[in-house]
Amino acid sequence: METIAQQAQVITAQELLKHWMGHRDLTRKVIEAFPEKDFFNFSIGGMRTPAALISELLAIAGPGLRQIVEGGKDALNEKFEFNGSKARVLELWNQADKEVETLWSKISMERFHERIVTFGQYEGSIWSSIFYFIDNEIHHRAQLYVYLRALGIAPPPFWERDFGDK
Amino acid sequence: METIAQQAQVITAQELLKHWMGHRDLTRKVIEAFPEKDFFNFSIGGMRTPAALISELLAIAGPGLRQIVEGGKDALNEKFEFNGSKARVLELWNQADKEVETLWSKISMERFHERIVTFGQYEGSIWSSIFYFIDNEIHHRAQLYVYLRALGIAPPPFWERDFGDK
Repeated sequence: METIAQQAQVITAQELLKHWMGHRDLTRKVIEAFPEKDFFNFSIGGMRTPAALISELLAIAGPGLRQIVEGGKDALNEKFEFNGSKARVLELWNQADKEVETLWSKISMERFHERIVTFGQYEGSIWSSIFYFIDNEIHHRAQLYVYLRALGIAPPPFWERDFGDK
Repeated sequence: METIAQQAQVITAQELLKHWMGHRDLTRKVIEAFPEKDFFNFSIGGMRTPAALISELLAIAGPGLRQIVEGGKDALNEKFEFNGSKARVLELWNQADKEVETLWSKISMERFHERIVTFGQYEGSIWSSIFYFIDNEIHHRAQLYVYLRALGIAPPPFWERDFGDK
């Protein structure tokens, strides 16, 4: 059932959050699909390891939204202590999920077109910054799909996720 | 300068189109970056060739939007006659750009939350269908980034595109 608020929108803030969380759940499945050893060591063509790519995503989602909500201009910090443990990576991923959901509720509708600078250097609107966070996650996760295929592992289907439209 | 219409929206329809076109321009650059031979033959881990992945994107963007605007339930048709020519692929890509832009102007604001079925089987809202088209393009293009790296070719930077927010 459409609401009046939905009719006036391309996508509501709540739908965009759900859509992102659907992507985050899929990324979690991709992390889970890697053998631990390969997660920290595998790469193709001189690219970063899965651990390094996921570090970038962890550095962006929670901290980026926090700057949108609370301000601040700390640079991107991709240093995480995983200690070679995928369980630790997943723990940080789950923590970031909670952080994203909590911070999201503090972004008022009127702010999505506000101009901001994230991580001290990336200028954009709040919506385009958030779209960048999501698009960048899709981008790096898709690279991990190729890594999994190269390792002979079937990745989770791209289309099996919550699209946020229900 | 924010308009009243923008203030009430997460993202306007016009911004979403510009955002998509920014992604489409980047995908064009990725197609251009491949040596012609590799575009039609290269693959990793039993995955599809760049030509086959781009065929899927061509089968979705124009035809998918056309079904949203004009109706219809034709199945996905990924068969294109490229005749081994990347120039032909780029010609079809450019044609699809024009089709997307023309069709977009015919989607009224009120329709984005309408439920539809595309290609005779994929059920969703109009916004989530369009997000799927875009996300799927980012996903497969990112896989081509790995192909390029494996071939020793530097892909165009992911962040050098029109985000649609200006």
